[in-house]
Amino acid sequence: MAQKRLGKQTIVFQNPPSIIATATIVGPKEGDGPLKDYFDLILDDDLWGESSWEKTEAKLQQEAVKLALTNAKKVTTDVDYLFAGDLLNQIISSSYAARELKIPFFGLYGACSTKTESLSLGAMAIDGGFADIVVCVTSSHFSTAERQYRFPLEHGNQRPLTAQWTVTGAGASVLSSSGNGPYITHVTTGRIIDPGIVNANNMGPAMAPAAADTIIRHFKDTGFKPEDYDLIITGDLATVGKEIAQELMAKEGYDISNIFMDCGIEIFDAERQDTHAGGSGCGCSAVVFAGYLYKALKAGKYKRIMLVSTGALLSPTIVQQGESIPGIAHAVTISTEK
Amino acid sequence: MAQKRLGKQTIVFQNPPSIIATATIVGPKEGDGPLKDYFDLILDDDLWGESSWEKTEAKLQQEAVKLALTNAKKVTTDVDYLFAGDLLNQIISSSYAARELKIPFFGLYGACSTKTESLSLGAMAIDGGFADIVVCVTSSHFSTAERQYRFPLEHGNQRPLTAQWTVTGAGASVLSSSGNGPYITHVTTGRIIDPGIVNANNMGPAMAPAAADTIIRHFKDTGFKPEDYDLIITGDLATVGKEIAQELMAKEGYDISNIFMDCGIEIFDAERQDTHAGGSGCGCSAVVFAGYLYKALKAGKYKRIMLVSTGALLSPTIVQQGESIPGIAHAVTISTEK
Repeated sequence: MAQKRLGKQTIVFQNPPSIIATATIVGPKEGDGPLKDYFDLILDDDLWGESSWEKTEAKLQQEAVKLALTNAKKVTTDVDYLFAGDLLNQIISSSYAARELKIPFFGLYGACSTKTESLSLGAMAIDGGFADIVVCVTSSHFSTAERQYRFPLEHGNQRPLTAQWTVTGAGASVLSSSGNGPYITHVTTGRIIDPGIVNANNMGPAMAPAAADTIIRHFKDTGFKPEDYDLIITGDLATVGKEIAQELMAKEGYDISNIFMDCGIEIFDAERQDTHAGGSGCGCSAVVFAGYLYKALKAGKYKRIMLVSTGALLSPTIVQQGESIPGIAHAVTISTEK
Repeated sequence: MAQKRLGKQTIVFQNPPSIIATATIVGPKEGDGPLKDYFDLILDDDLWGESSWEKTEAKLQQEAVKLALTNAKKVTTDVDYLFAGDLLNQIISSSYAARELKIPFFGLYGACSTKTESLSLGAMAIDGGFADIVVCVTSSHFSTAERQYRFPLEHGNQRPLTAQWTVTGAGASVLSSSGNGPYITHVTTGRIIDPGIVNANNMGPAMAPAAADTIIRHFKDTGFKPEDYDLIITGDLATVGKEIAQELMAKEGYDISNIFMDCGIEIFDAERQDTHAGGSGCGCSAVVFAGYLYKALKAGKYKRIMLVSTGALLSPTIVQQGESIPGIAHAVTISTEK
């Protein structure tokens, strides 16, 4: 049975699922950033006609899925499964979106690693023969995340330079058993690693060891080397975490410095937009992938990339009880060739 | 590719995964209930030596997984994936358990439907050829759930008769590509249905329409009839929800009354234990399945059952904003024969 497994944590698909379409919807700040030309829809304000930010975030997911399906020339009844998650307690953005979409629904929680968690399970459902079409969607919203995880926005606290800026946006990907790519060829599923960080305004270092562990594991499991990739891009390590991850990998003999990017760094112009260490959130790698990276793959700019969404499993309740913040990272290889 | 699909929402496995072992750990109240003889470990108190109930619940999951692996004569490094979830914000019981277990981890959230969500995805991972051994675990804890979803325990509010009692317990199941059963043969994945309930002390009616929808869908997709099952058992509809679900199915021509049970009703003696409508929580169907049902299948008391864990996706944040509580239910067929 296990011929699809490579090493300890990696699987290789026999019939790699094709990502046949994507869609992205982002907030005004993201739409003012360096990747603005790659998003499908940029909102004028962060409420989008709703009465609360939570309702807005659910609408972001719902409309991103609908737009991705339109881009794929499909309708909701064509979809076998929806794999979705977000940062909010009880993943309400996903479940209220799924309520409207009426697609059989698997709810996921991996903090900001949820984007590649959803792509991993979605691709397994297709390659396993259980689905023809699945949609994978994740989101985040600056205003819902800040008040849940940190401080009320009205409090106006000063953000330290290690802080990251939660991305307002949703990114949806439509995976199919047929299509012309790009294809999901490999999945390396992460383990939880906890370096002992307790500061909710310093998430990069909490995730960096998990990212390094998953990427190194991927190389060991597959036999790939850094030069086999055009790009390795983490979710939201941002400037502080990216440097740590790069050092941890170098110590193990893996120099990926010339192909290493981070979605959290790419999405904002940190200096002009005052976002400090960079972007974060389930929406961060979701819109960078579904916007910029997907289009760059389609255009032939990249042939094979590794997307490594990174999650800091921050819980205010248990951190207040003295616990530290565990990290996790899931890697997905996306290639223009099967 | 889609030969494993039946109808709109059901899959049938070609090589049905075998549930080779289970383990259950429950609190004192559950250990005083009608199913006490079927649990592996009954705690003397609800803290188990920890300094908070949240840390206790993480320990429940962690130790249930270890015990299930011992029962399966396996160790953590034999396990390809851990599929886990719970009721707490950021599913901390699962992620802190996964931190200690160091198994590649997929975090799930489906409220009390998470038990069958984990069995569905775990079985798909095995039948799809992506794993030889997976562990599926979920938990809940009365004291962590009450204070997160309803009132501080110190408040001492009176519980209405429609209220359910969150089960303190964790149930783990070890699935394997080989073994002598019982086997997971079919999975019917639910859609979200929202009947408009807004009362956090009346969860049964919020879930009943979703349970009826998934069970009816299962019959339509598979061609099975109620008489093909020895038992159809929902997660935690409890007395109020079970009656509604049964009526909804009867209206569609499916009379399952003589084989219909509910884990939430079975786990407590409502009158003697003062639990009102019945038990609830991710731990409810987890320990009733991994305790009583698994052993009844092994003993030949049942040959084919349908386990339908039911989730009320209650979010205090968005209910306070005027939203209602969506329900979802995932069905898994478990049979002593492939």
